[in-house]
Amino acid sequence: MALRRGAGVGRPPDVAIKRLPVYLRVLAELEAAGSDVVSSADLARRTGFSSEQIRKDLAYFGSFGTRGVGYSTAGLASGIRRVLGLDREVAAVLVGAGHLGTALARYNVGREQHVNLVAIFDIDPAKLGQELGGTRVRSVTELPAVVRRLGVRLGVIAVPAAAAQTVAEDLVGAGVVALLNFAPVKLSLPAHVQVQNIDLSLELQALAYYLAGEAEAAREG
Amino acid sequence: MALRRGAGVGRPPDVAIKRLPVYLRVLAELEAAGSDVVSSADLARRTGFSSEQIRKDLAYFGSFGTRGVGYSTAGLASGIRRVLGLDREVAAVLVGAGHLGTALARYNVGREQHVNLVAIFDIDPAKLGQELGGTRVRSVTELPAVVRRLGVRLGVIAVPAAAAQTVAEDLVGAGVVALLNFAPVKLSLPAHVQVQNIDLSLELQALAYYLAGEAEAAREG
Repeated sequence: MALRRGAGVGRPPDVAIKRLPVYLRVLAELEAAGSDVVSSADLARRTGFSSEQIRKDLAYFGSFGTRGVGYSTAGLASGIRRVLGLDREVAAVLVGAGHLGTALARYNVGREQHVNLVAIFDIDPAKLGQELGGTRVRSVTELPAVVRRLGVRLGVIAVPAAAAQTVAEDLVGAGVVALLNFAPVKLSLPAHVQVQNIDLSLELQALAYYLAGEAEAAREG
Repeated sequence: MALRRGAGVGRPPDVAIKRLPVYLRVLAELEAAGSDVVSSADLARRTGFSSEQIRKDLAYFGSFGTRGVGYSTAGLASGIRRVLGLDREVAAVLVGAGHLGTALARYNVGREQHVNLVAIFDIDPAKLGQELGGTRVRSVTELPAVVRRLGVRLGVIAVPAAAAQTVAEDLVGAGVVALLNFAPVKLSLPAHVQVQNIDLSLELQALAYYLAGEAEAAREG
């Protein structure tokens, strides 16, 4: 059980990568509860993904689980941490200390979550110097210098849509290569930058599909 | 061009459903800019998804786009709205008026987004009666009666993890069948309820993978 990148079969798709933190959270809960061994069926029950899906995801990293045997809880957790690069602390910066940024910063605190928010930036002078989740809010004018000095490569954008592209360019110019973007705009950035967009209103719109399906089933039934 | 459920080939996967609102947003922008016709290549450039992916997604609903021809912008937009059930207004309730809930409620306002937040609930007496994005905050004790009276079937959970399961059960008990859950817990609910979980710290952990990949490439290169 030594999960690592390139140890398994094929190139993992982004959707598989997004499931790994979910497995990791469940494994941490199981470790805390004293479970030394976990089966893919246990993981399936606790995550909602199928056993087959879980075994396939782990096989990308060289773990070929055997039906009925089970994994070492701690071993699997540390393997996933290593694959995700979370065996070391990962530093991130947040831009935007509005309601969403505040929620993100507070959410970040006191949880087994591996990503450490090392700086928060905002444009509003009234917010400067405030602490959010233990991190002080600085002026965006300090962004390039602070990001460079701390060597941060992960950024979170929680600013209004109109400001997002400029903020993204500033972050990338200072060395950031992965972005979590909450602004409802498509950022135009160099190809080496990995962007994950989370648009909260689009999530709601997609959910509406399932309501309509229910209404349709009722009409047809 | 009459997109509808069941008109196309196969059962659309959830990931295809989640792309439809992205197409819809781009189509709305194009309509506003006066573009009558749009090609899948235009959509690809503006959404970041491939033309093949877009044509495949639309084919689930009976739209078999022809390479080089193009769609009616308005026709495609109204087709997607119909498929998503957004040709009528969809009502939703929000539980939790903290920073995240406030961000969600304000975000909701004044945007072409089809989902209407009709009620907001919180447990904190200090928040009751406040308006967020034009909607008044009510006590959670009113939740069952209000959700039933308004016939709401879509709920958004933005409460702390410890409260989420109870809130979810109250919502489902009052008739909600689709949930957007921001609390970092796996909700245990009847099978007919569609739950979309958004865990902000897990999104950050997944992004860390791409940082680690970059570090690895640098070591190997």
